[in-house]
Amino acid sequence: MEALKQKILSEGKVLSESVLKVDSFLNHQIDPELMQEIGREFADRYADAGVTKILTLESSGIAPAVMTGLTMGVPVIFARKRKSLTLTNHLYSAEVYSFTKREANEISISQDFITSEDTVLIMDDFLANGQAVIGMINILQQADAQLAGIGIVIEKGFQEGGRKIRNQGYRVETLANIAELTDGKVTFMKEEKVV
Amino acid sequence: MEALKQKILSEGKVLSESVLKVDSFLNHQIDPELMQEIGREFADRYADAGVTKILTLESSGIAPAVMTGLTMGVPVIFARKRKSLTLTNHLYSAEVYSFTKREANEISISQDFITSEDTVLIMDDFLANGQAVIGMINILQQADAQLAGIGIVIEKGFQEGGRKIRNQGYRVETLANIAELTDGKVTFMKEEKVV
Repeated sequence: MEALKQKILSEGKVLSESVLKVDSFLNHQIDPELMQEIGREFADRYADAGVTKILTLESSGIAPAVMTGLTMGVPVIFARKRKSLTLTNHLYSAEVYSFTKREANEISISQDFITSEDTVLIMDDFLANGQAVIGMINILQQADAQLAGIGIVIEKGFQEGGRKIRNQGYRVETLANIAELTDGKVTFMKEEKVV
Repeated sequence: MEALKQKILSEGKVLSESVLKVDSFLNHQIDPELMQEIGREFADRYADAGVTKILTLESSGIAPAVMTGLTMGVPVIFARKRKSLTLTNHLYSAEVYSFTKREANEISISQDFITSEDTVLIMDDFLANGQAVIGMINILQQADAQLAGIGIVIEKGFQEGGRKIRNQGYRVETLANIAELTDGKVTFMKEEKVV
């Protein structure tokens, strides 16, 4: 998605060969119009997949997921990273290790909102080692729900997550797939279509 | 806002005289169309306030804030509740105690995204004792930014937060103001205009 790639090139900060900071439009400050474009793009790519719900993870997945849900006309569920006092029992849970934050979190959703009748689009802001997506797939398996596919805003194509998940036969749609972060520069994967 | 009140009456769960659970459309599962209506309502109420940025708090504030930002054409910043490894220095921070989660969190935003040039609309999903909003006001004071006002989806009018903040002279707009949660029923404040 060209508008997203241009935004990454103009505002993304390469902090190391594995860390790209996009705090000015996605992870801390949010650009609502860009999120709307992202939502329309995912809705278009998954238009024929029979999606009934979108599952994402707090916090940075929420904005693109809600915009996608608005276009598709389906509800969005965000998995929580810790249990809160008002959401304690009747949960599907999975353990997710975050390499960015160097900690393990339990992610959970209420059993009320995803059932075996649902076909779910999993979404997240970043795909790197794939831990969060694998945790969400695990949750869908517990709910016996169908997985339509995975929608990722920015993939770090040089890390193993995308390959691992695609090798399991799942569909992964990525709007900006990064080949490398070297010399402070972002290089995108060549195989992506250029508009 | 009538559509929101109807949604609260039909789907909200009164867990006690102080706890209303709205996990089916706001705090866990999100109804994107309702969020869009909420965004349009806040944009309308604050249309002449010169808002340049919206400040909210992860996670449940993000969806209504992003929809408001989309309608107003301004960026949204969500304060984080803990420092992450990619967002460590150059912060404005405030301590916020959550009565729901019974823990104190430090909320922080990067100094990059709010300056003395900004006029900020603070938004949150709930207003009860007001701790989160007071923390965000504190952050805006550190940034020497203007406060346009506060936009709250659901106010617990029987708790002290709203009164405390209005008494300090700040404008608070609430879309559903709850008078009481007794006998498992939600009663809204009478002074709100009924459509």
